[in-house]
Amino acid sequence: MEANNRVNGLEEKIKGPTNPMVTPLLTDLYQFTMAYAYWKGGKHLERSVFDLFFRRNPFGGEYTIFAGLEECIRFIANFRIGEEEIAFLRQCLPPTCEDAFFDYLRGIDCSDVEVYAVAEGSVVFPKMPLMRIEGPVALVQLLETPFVNLINYASLVATNAARHRFVAGKSKMLLEFGLRRAQGPDGGISASKYCYMGGFDATSNVAAGKLFGIPLRGTHSHAFVSSFMYFPLSYCSCILATGTTPGDKLKLEWCLKLGTFREYGDSADEIVDKSLRSSNGSTTCEDFVGLVQSWLNKLQYTESLRGSFGETNQSELAAFTSYALAFPSNFLALVDTYDVVRSGIPNFCAVALALNDLGYKAGGIRLDSGDLAYLSCESRKFFRAVEKEFGVPGFGKINITASNDLNEETLDALNKQGHEVDSFGIGTYLVTCYAQPALGCVFKLVEINKQPRIKLSEDVSKVSIPCKKRCFRLFGKEGYPLVDIMTGVNEPPPKVSERILCRHPFNESKRAYVVPQQVEELLKCYWSGDSGTPREELPPIQKIRERCIQQLDQMRPDHMRRLNPTPYKVSVSAKLYDFIHFLWLNEAPVGELQ
Amino acid sequence: MEANNRVNGLEEKIKGPTNPMVTPLLTDLYQFTMAYAYWKGGKHLERSVFDLFFRRNPFGGEYTIFAGLEECIRFIANFRIGEEEIAFLRQCLPPTCEDAFFDYLRGIDCSDVEVYAVAEGSVVFPKMPLMRIEGPVALVQLLETPFVNLINYASLVATNAARHRFVAGKSKMLLEFGLRRAQGPDGGISASKYCYMGGFDATSNVAAGKLFGIPLRGTHSHAFVSSFMYFPLSYCSCILATGTTPGDKLKLEWCLKLGTFREYGDSADEIVDKSLRSSNGSTTCEDFVGLVQSWLNKLQYTESLRGSFGETNQSELAAFTSYALAFPSNFLALVDTYDVVRSGIPNFCAVALALNDLGYKAGGIRLDSGDLAYLSCESRKFFRAVEKEFGVPGFGKINITASNDLNEETLDALNKQGHEVDSFGIGTYLVTCYAQPALGCVFKLVEINKQPRIKLSEDVSKVSIPCKKRCFRLFGKEGYPLVDIMTGVNEPPPKVSERILCRHPFNESKRAYVVPQQVEELLKCYWSGDSGTPREELPPIQKIRERCIQQLDQMRPDHMRRLNPTPYKVSVSAKLYDFIHFLWLNEAPVGELQ
Repeated sequence: MEANNRVNGLEEKIKGPTNPMVTPLLTDLYQFTMAYAYWKGGKHLERSVFDLFFRRNPFGGEYTIFAGLEECIRFIANFRIGEEEIAFLRQCLPPTCEDAFFDYLRGIDCSDVEVYAVAEGSVVFPKMPLMRIEGPVALVQLLETPFVNLINYASLVATNAARHRFVAGKSKMLLEFGLRRAQGPDGGISASKYCYMGGFDATSNVAAGKLFGIPLRGTHSHAFVSSFMYFPLSYCSCILATGTTPGDKLKLEWCLKLGTFREYGDSADEIVDKSLRSSNGSTTCEDFVGLVQSWLNKLQYTESLRGSFGETNQSELAAFTSYALAFPSNFLALVDTYDVVRSGIPNFCAVALALNDLGYKAGGIRLDSGDLAYLSCESRKFFRAVEKEFGVPGFGKINITASNDLNEETLDALNKQGHEVDSFGIGTYLVTCYAQPALGCVFKLVEINKQPRIKLSEDVSKVSIPCKKRCFRLFGKEGYPLVDIMTGVNEPPPKVSERILCRHPFNESKRAYVVPQQVEELLKCYWSGDSGTPREELPPIQKIRERCIQQLDQMRPDHMRRLNPTPYKVSVSAKLYDFIHFLWLNEAPVGELQ
Repeated sequence: MEANNRVNGLEEKIKGPTNPMVTPLLTDLYQFTMAYAYWKGGKHLERSVFDLFFRRNPFGGEYTIFAGLEECIRFIANFRIGEEEIAFLRQCLPPTCEDAFFDYLRGIDCSDVEVYAVAEGSVVFPKMPLMRIEGPVALVQLLETPFVNLINYASLVATNAARHRFVAGKSKMLLEFGLRRAQGPDGGISASKYCYMGGFDATSNVAAGKLFGIPLRGTHSHAFVSSFMYFPLSYCSCILATGTTPGDKLKLEWCLKLGTFREYGDSADEIVDKSLRSSNGSTTCEDFVGLVQSWLNKLQYTESLRGSFGETNQSELAAFTSYALAFPSNFLALVDTYDVVRSGIPNFCAVALALNDLGYKAGGIRLDSGDLAYLSCESRKFFRAVEKEFGVPGFGKINITASNDLNEETLDALNKQGHEVDSFGIGTYLVTCYAQPALGCVFKLVEINKQPRIKLSEDVSKVSIPCKKRCFRLFGKEGYPLVDIMTGVNEPPPKVSERILCRHPFNESKRAYVVPQQVEELLKCYWSGDSGTPREELPPIQKIRERCIQQLDQMRPDHMRRLNPTPYKVSVSAKLYDFIHFLWLNEAPVGELQ
């Protein structure tokens, strides 16, 4: 699906949503029943303004990354209700609903809608509108559920990614490995997209790599290593297949008793083609398996490494060798299937040194269990010793990736312990936002027919801020954002070097004068329908990611720290403050104490 | 996409996955790098057996609902890697990868794969294989990530739904309202599907209703009510638009001071067409608005209701009246926009009684804030008083729906307090599985080339159970399931009335003899490729839901209780036990204490 809309005077095609399941029916039934009630009452075309915002930052932090905008725009750019959908809606609504309503639905698109939004990838705060949606009330209500769905998880997971990046530090590679544990296929694809946006470097998710151009990373799994495991087949299988014969039983008891029964064959026999061309193509090593074995022997007899390992696991060695033959330029090994220090690392080094003989540089190792701080340090020590002993430049710096249920807390703990990990592969906790799996974005009516609307609640934090508004970020002398401010749409905007009073929207005593050194208008037009208003371009994901990283860098550090961060101030103009409280008093019922 | 496969000898088309984004690329990159390494080493066609299972029940419970099977089967039934995908994979893999590998990928489908699984909707337990996947190792590895993705969230959210049902009790309607807070669009659609499967009655998600035939429910939102709000437009807007003039300021100060300024117009003026035909079509009420108003007056002057309310909110009344005119047979009202007891309920009753005059029965109310136990009881009292006072049969039983951040705990608390809620609308906590947002299903190699494989770990709970296995559920005299047991695939299966030893897979001292009264084989063939093995039908969602409800009913109550439930026993046969420990000793490295 493609649609037209004007960007700075130029026509441009806007693609449909990434997920083709995002259609006008991906909404709550009550949006359609309300649309009917509006239509039936002749109110459906009343011009309305809705704000999309959230009330609390997630994960106990004081900031949020705004994400999901492009998908919203793609959705409305292609918003049409097809015949099949109309037919289904007819079944869902009571038979008394009039035909003309369905004709109305058949005709609607978003040419009469305008969407103003904060740039995707921006750092945002509670209560401020992230999006302002204007249009006929019945239609804009239909957009509520898909918009909130598309923004909520996107912003949540981008924020989670940014928080992981903050703890890991800028020098580390962060890899998103969450597809298998994500909440459904789209949970996985969205996670990959928005984690990249929030500052991750790559994903394991091939589909996301293809859809969004995100770099892909991966090593191999334990299954690959165990597929090379060798043991006495005939013996084992007969026990299960034909029942334990007296002789088998004896043998089994014996091995159980001694606990040391070994009857390994040579796992390396599984490798058929043992030859490997050198990196520059000049020579061919006919027996790479033998070369690896000779390196392993050398390692075993090297004085400085002596005692750290004895006999390594041969099936693991066969698996590594086989993987290196397939990927001589990109040899990566999962080293914890048996024992990292006594088997995985020496086996890896033997293969890496053999590759080095042929001009290849090994890629690195992955640790997926155990004490990652300790194991990474031990691995690094071994790599450095090898570099020194055999004079292989750079060997000490081989990449160490860690995975296994990592999250903000474990990254923080690793930092405190000291570690030698270069890359972190993070899955479950990242993509499911385990620490807080939902963000509470809401979509509130703030004006209809040019009349402001307020949503009251006994809980002050749930009172919505009425009126069609403009939003500004005011920057201080040091370049940090100081405060965000909302004003009525017709108020004069804040100006650089002019003193402006910023008031807490609900707390009378909280107010401050600010003299901004820079003023940024936050809500810009991203969809103007047929109105002709010029609109912002939808930037490519890399640009959004850069914006996000740059905005996070620009924040005052005390807003960003993990422990007791300072809340960033969100305010309203003096006029808007007065107006909120006027409306509030006007609407709130006067209680009677009994 | 459609594919063929034999069901009980008959050819049948199997549709593609519900979400078209579920393609062979929806997998981790390392599945493709491993596939290349297997291929390059000539091992890619080795026949392998993988088990899909989880290690711990979610939500602190002792049971899990297995869900997601149909989507897995739809996926493999249509598994083909297209040219565009091949081209992308070429870019992802190192340029040294040989062309012939891509020819291999081009040719693969799942005709050589077999999938055995527990029936979807079954109650299942840790360590037992939920699925057994057999086929060429390189291909089956490609299936790992999508299978685990499709099963994990589906099973998690179905289990969450079943747990909510358990607390709510069978007599309540449970409505899933989570789309806007779900983790992405597919998170929302999957949630609706699998919550229904786990025992919910309906969803608000229209797309899910269309895709799966799930009943749809919805009322209206606060925005609908506030769109009818009336207040002095000219006055308010001029304050913001043109700045506060001295006169305005005075007026504003005055109203702020008194706090009682009211200048309502008549919101009912917004309603243009005030006529309503009676239910049987015999008469038309020309002024339904007046009829409603007269009922409100009657309510206000009714002795038994006196004192419970005074003047109700007129914009709310206008909104309800308008909604009733649109849906006279399905009038539902959200009654908490202003004040449930003093405004929402009397307004609702006035409209409902006016509808009753015309032969319509009102649908019910929704409470979305405040003390739901108290408010539901007050509402019920009012409804009963109206029934008695005006002799409207059934009015006392009008449906009360509650929503607002409900979860297992709040349902439990409501039960303890006593409430009059008939239906619960549950969103965020249900669909994001807030209490535990991920299930840890894994996919482990248990056999390759007819050789059993074990995945070792220093953590005993992470050791996998090797061998291609059969799984049985043994039932006791009282009809409850007693224990699940895994056996080697060639062992004689457990028989009714025959004593069998069930052993804990890892704990030598835990074992028990069982004489089953009934034996159910758990793993059945759901995909047989070209092998000709007859396979099970994929039942419609309603059947799966029935199975789920029936299986939950059949469980011994102590496994199901929320507080300290008894773990259900999962065991292995004596032979399999011996074999596990033989392999374990054979593979585990012998430590050296230093």
